[in-house]
This record gives sequence, structure tokens and C-alpha cells, in this order.
Amino acid sequence: MVFVKTHDISELNSGTIGKEVVLGGWVEDLRKLGKMTFITLRDVSGISQIIVKGELNDNLEELNRQSVISVRGIVQETKARDFDFEIKAEEIDVLAKAIHPLPVDPIGRLESNIDTRLNHRALDMRNQKTASIFKLRHHVLEILRKTLAEKKFIEITTPKIIGSASEGGANLFSLDYFGKTAYLAQSPQLYKEQMTIGLERVYEISNFYRAENSHTGRHLSEFTSIDIEAAFMDYNDVMNILESLVMGVYKFVSVNCKKEQENIGHTIEIPKSPFERITYTQVIEELKKVGEKVEFGDDLLDSHLRIIGKNHPGFYFLTDWPMKLKPFYIREKDEDSKLSRSFDLQYGYLELSSGGTRLHNPETLKSRLKEQGLDPAQFADHLQTFDWGMPPHSGWGMGLDRLMTTLIGIDNVREVVLYPRDPDRLSP
Amino acid sequence: MVFVKTHDISELNSGTIGKEVVLGGWVEDLRKLGKMTFITLRDVSGISQIIVKGELNDNLEELNRQSVISVRGIVQETKARDFDFEIKAEEIDVLAKAIHPLPVDPIGRLESNIDTRLNHRALDMRNQKTASIFKLRHHVLEILRKTLAEKKFIEITTPKIIGSASEGGANLFSLDYFGKTAYLAQSPQLYKEQMTIGLERVYEISNFYRAENSHTGRHLSEFTSIDIEAAFMDYNDVMNILESLVMGVYKFVSVNCKKEQENIGHTIEIPKSPFERITYTQVIEELKKVGEKVEFGDDLLDSHLRIIGKNHPGFYFLTDWPMKLKPFYIREKDEDSKLSRSFDLQYGYLELSSGGTRLHNPETLKSRLKEQGLDPAQFADHLQTFDWGMPPHSGWGMGLDRLMTTLIGIDNVREVVLYPRDPDRLSP
Repeated sequence: MVFVKTHDISELNSGTIGKEVVLGGWVEDLRKLGKMTFITLRDVSGISQIIVKGELNDNLEELNRQSVISVRGIVQETKARDFDFEIKAEEIDVLAKAIHPLPVDPIGRLESNIDTRLNHRALDMRNQKTASIFKLRHHVLEILRKTLAEKKFIEITTPKIIGSASEGGANLFSLDYFGKTAYLAQSPQLYKEQMTIGLERVYEISNFYRAENSHTGRHLSEFTSIDIEAAFMDYNDVMNILESLVMGVYKFVSVNCKKEQENIGHTIEIPKSPFERITYTQVIEELKKVGEKVEFGDDLLDSHLRIIGKNHPGFYFLTDWPMKLKPFYIREKDEDSKLSRSFDLQYGYLELSSGGTRLHNPETLKSRLKEQGLDPAQFADHLQTFDWGMPPHSGWGMGLDRLMTTLIGIDNVREVVLYPRDPDRLSP
Repeated sequence: MVFVKTHDISELNSGTIGKEVVLGGWVEDLRKLGKMTFITLRDVSGISQIIVKGELNDNLEELNRQSVISVRGIVQETKARDFDFEIKAEEIDVLAKAIHPLPVDPIGRLESNIDTRLNHRALDMRNQKTASIFKLRHHVLEILRKTLAEKKFIEITTPKIIGSASEGGANLFSLDYFGKTAYLAQSPQLYKEQMTIGLERVYEISNFYRAENSHTGRHLSEFTSIDIEAAFMDYNDVMNILESLVMGVYKFVSVNCKKEQENIGHTIEIPKSPFERITYTQVIEELKKVGEKVEFGDDLLDSHLRIIGKNHPGFYFLTDWPMKLKPFYIREKDEDSKLSRSFDLQYGYLELSSGGTRLHNPETLKSRLKEQGLDPAQFADHLQTFDWGMPPHSGWGMGLDRLMTTLIGIDNVREVVLYPRDPDRLSP
């Protein structure tokens, strides 16, 4: 390959008029008019029109749409409505031919269902709507990490292969690890707590695993989680951090990703802040008022959350859950030990994040493990760290995929994950 | 917990003198002199001296080092040599007591071997040498992602649970996936190649898995890999990107992470650039000259790389390997089809990265699979994408953990991984 791309299409401007450029991209459209061919060329950055005259057309015989070409030519002004500039071709190389017909229409004129698109995910990425989702995701990750670093969080990488079934052990994938049984981590919970002992504030953005036989638009077997844990913070502090991160994401992409919003056909509205903070007890009262049979201590069912979600559209925190509904590591409230220092971040009925203040006293932690029917001996590696000067700490985990669905205004996480994994889908 | 930390210790400055602050941290040292106690308090940002007088001392009876305290007090100038300021305590809360003796010395005066430290990793993080390694790692990730984004790479997340044994299938961990056999991905190779069809330039930094029964300082079962793939680029282009990333990492941390270098006791020297580029054929000649029995087509043994590494200390590229030594997806050279458009980035004898130009013609790719004894049917999901307009593309993968060892000047990757996994180590 001698060809070297000199410009992305979006880099063409009035300064490049009259200059020779080399572009590379995909033939999105191709129309012959007499001895001329008009090609719409797309690369990752945009589209341009290529004018092909004379012998160069020989190259284009039987060239299917979506084939890959490189074009050397001169930039000129255009009268065509859809383009800012056009290229008068001087040389065209066909780098890869596409078959015809393609299994899904990458222009998106013919809609394919999600399963067909996922089976042909690479081609689906030529659809500008899909590509824009993943460009947005890139920017969301960028702004999340930038903000966390500014707030003095240190990025860590915890192991995904773990030796014991932490956090209760339900729904874990297991594997053979050199003759031992190992598991895929569901979350970095115990490790991130341990790290506050030295690094104070840590975060991780990584994939985790849940062997749950769910068939919904919001559960996957492999999902991306954003996790933070912070020493010397209470659950209100980490709720504030979570709210400012979510607001930061919305503000950034709303302002900086106009083209992606256009392609997706969805305008990202900046949510109202501060987010409402409703206690679990208030929610129970709300549900009783509309005739739901629910008592303090009951977990909230999907049907309950749909009612609450209608009353409180958009983002809100659901706080102060009963201790008995929370994992062993969550700390009780001083004023009422039946209540916990915990919260979920909700978007309507959808749970985005769960967090709280953690227990940091090893004796209380052991009691709570036993209360929940867990064996402290199974947690020996974790518990020992609480004897080494474990600071008070709080944190949360948030599903990145779910956050992305709120941003994009769709309700299937499969749309925002490149190659989703669920009980029925293990390929491509 | 009512206590709210108002300052990190590093935020104390002449402007805070005379002001009340609330600090939180660990008791690194504690000396009683008559009715006064001098505490050295450490938090993630630094150390300060706390002066405790009168009744407040009652709180400190039997307080072990490394216990967690919060201190409210007034900042004042100090005559103590090791501190910039000191705090006259007005209130002290003991937040968590540490046991005595601790299983490893977090001050690092008593050295523990790596296994003991890994068994007590959270406590090891109180050692400033260890903490500094992970602070450096945080900055390395930061600068890598920033540079890649500037070069228009889009961050992607590929699946780690895969349905077929790609890339040959040796050394894969397998797991039961809802009744089917699945594997843990060794690399994002096939997925990142597929993504160039729509996103052109992609990168991923994530953990991958290798079930190799290796017991060396440079192999782990779970490792962090940096991977890029770029459409319309040749292997020389992606070598240039790799070199500029490595140079960028060294330059950034060398200048911006002085304190971490001090703690580690290692000065990061910026490597000479451009890196030497030596062909495989030249290396074979070099080895023959010193009496090694090696012929064109032989793989380079560890012993060979140690000789080459001595001749070429520091970073260098080893290019143009024989096709038969390279994976099926690597493209041949036009001028000699026995040679490949491929490279390794070496640091002395240590392989840091491997990459090259990929085949993008589906027919050639199928032939190569068969040549290597692989069944194209096993790769159907991957091969179909090459019919949809697959651009010429190149890329590489680099071991982040190995890069970190070069930076820090140590030769065991376990030092730079929080909770390493190897055939003998599955916990904590």
C-alpha cells in the first residue's frame, strides 16, 4: 500500500481549495451521468463528493456501494447541495470490494431489527446512527475520567478472576483456574474498599460479569461498570460526586456532540439539578397512597418502580433503604439502626447506580456477614484489611451502559454495547 | 461520622497558617514527650506533624501506629525539619484502630518479600513506594488515553467472554456460559480489526487472559493490554504512533511525577528517539556472528533476545519477521512474500508490544488460516466482515504492565499489578 491519506473529509476547508489531497473511505453512493461518475465518499469524519471523468471510470466498473477506495484529487467548490466541497479525481484505487447485497443496509434506509444488526455489528457501525452512539460513548468515558481525576480519584484495575465467591456468590460464572475453581468478578466492591486504606480515593471503569438468566432490555451478562470508593466520605458526599458526574456528562455531550445528536435523532437535554432525594420510607407512603400493598422492609418490585418512575421522571436519588435489603458492607444510620446510609440513583424506573457508606469496623462487619447467612471465614482476606487502619469510606457503582441509554433516549442496553452478551448471545 | 475533611495535607500552605482545618489520615509515628504528643500524620497527599497537648492525649492511650484519626486544629509554622507546617490539635477522633504488630511494615523500613506484600496488598499500599507505583500507573493511563484521543482514536470495549477459540485457541481459560462453552479473550484482535470498518481508528485498554503455566517475572494470567487498530495505515505508521506514545509517557511522568520518582528511588530517564529499527534478518546475522546456531525462519529464543538486548539496550523495534512465525492475520511484504509487515517493540530482551499490517483480503486470509492449520469455518463471524468493505489496516497490542516495569526500573510485573494472578496466585 503506497497510498497515504492526507486528510480526513472533515478537514477539507476553504484553505484546501485548489490543493491536491488523498482521501480514503467508503463509497456510499455512485451515480453515472454520461462519461462522468459522481461518488459520495464517506470516512469516519464526514462525506464528500468525488467527480470522476474519462478513463478513471474504468476502475469503477462493477464497483459495489460500501467498497473501500482511495482518491487522489484536487479540492474544488461545489454546487451540490449536500456537500461543502468536491474532489476532482486524478487517481482512484479500489482497496477492497464489498459484496452486493449487504446483509444489513448501512445507510439505515431499510431498518433491520436489533438481532440482525448485532449479528453484523461491524457493518452496523457504518450506519451513522450506530457510529454516533459509540462516538458519544467515547466522549462520556473521557469526561468521566477527567472529572474523577480532578476530584483526586486514582484509577485502579482490580482482578476479574477471583478465588472466592464474594458478595454472597449468586449468579457467578465459574471457571477452571489451573485446577482450582475461580469466578468472574461481579464488581470491584471488596477490592476498591481495600484500596481506600492507602490511596483514599479510587475509581475503576471496567467490565464485570453476572450469570443471571435475565431477558430484559437492561441486563447483560457482561457489562461496563463505573465504580468509585472514597475514604473520609459519607454517602451524601459520594451522592454529590455522582450527581456532578452525571450532570457533567450531560452538559459536555449536549454542547460538544451536536453532530452525533443529529445522527441519532435525539436532542440531549441537560437534566434539572439538584436531583430530588426521596427516602425509601417516603416511597412506601407514595405507593400505599395509590393502593399498593407494600410495607416497610419490602423490596421494591419492578411494578413499584414504574409507579415511582412516573411520579418522578428523570434522575432522582432513592435513599435510606432498610438495612435488611442492603448488602453486608453497608452501614446503618446512627439515629435508626434499621435504616442504612445507602442510595440508588434512579432514572424514572431504571436503577443506574447503587451506593452508600460502608462499615469500616471489622467486628460489626463480621456480625453483618453472619446475619446475612454468610461465612466470615470465606471473607478472611477481605476482613484482615480492616485491622490495618481502615478509614471510614463510601462509594457507588454505576452501569455505564444504562447511563448511555438515558443519554440516547432508548431502552435497550444492547444498542450501546458493541458486542453484547446475554443468555442467548455469545457471538459474534 | 460528623467529621468532614477540609484539606489534604498537601493543601496546607502559608495561606492556611492560623486557620482551623480538619485533616484525616494515618498515624505514621507517635512520640510522647512529657505532657505532649507529636504525631506524624499521613494522608494520600503527604505528611504533617500534629501537636497534642493536655487532655486530648487521653484519646491517644494505646493507639497503635497506622490507626486512622481525624484532627481538627490550627495550622502553624514549625521548627521540625521534616515538615512544612504543623497542626495544633483542638480535637482528635480515633476513627479506626490498627492492630500491632502489622503483618508487613508499611513504612518500608523492614523489607518484606513480594509474596508477603501481595498477601497483604492493601497494607502494602501504605508503603509510599508501592503507592507511588500506582499513582504513576494512573498518570500513564491518563496520558496514553489523552494522546490516543488527540490522534483520533475512539475508545471501544470488546467482549471478554467469547464464543469461539480465536487466534488458534491455545492457552484459553474456558467457562460454562448458560450451558455452552465460552472462553476468556486473550486479546481484542479480531474485534478491533472489525471495528476499523466503521470507526477507522479504535483503541482499548483492558484486562485480557492467558491460561499459560508460566512462572516468570513477566507473565501473568490476567494482564492489562493497550490495543490500537487503524484503517488506512501501514505498519510503519502504527510503529510511529507507538513510539510517540511511549515517548509521551516517559516525558510526562519524568517531568510531572517528581515525588513519585523520589519515593520509588528511581529517576525516569527520557529514552533516545527515534528508536532503532532492526530487521529480523539483521538480528539473525548478529546472532550468527557471536556463534549462535540460528537460521532464517527460527523463532528467537529467550537466550537470543538476551544477547540482542545487550547489544541494543533500551527501546528498539524488531521488524520484518518471517511470515511463518506470525499469526494468520499478518500481511506479507510486496517485495518478499516470505517476510511480513510486522514488528515487536523491545526493551532490551523484553517484548513490550507486537503489531503489524493486517491482511484485509478475505481470500488471502482464508488461505493463511488453512496454512496455519486453522479452520476458516471457526472464523466465519470474523471472515464475513471482510466482505463488507474492509479497509487496509494496521495495529498493535502492548502490555501495560511490562511498560510500567521499564518505567520503574524493576523486572517483576507483580510489582505494578494490584492483585496479580498467576498459576500459583488466585487471592487475595
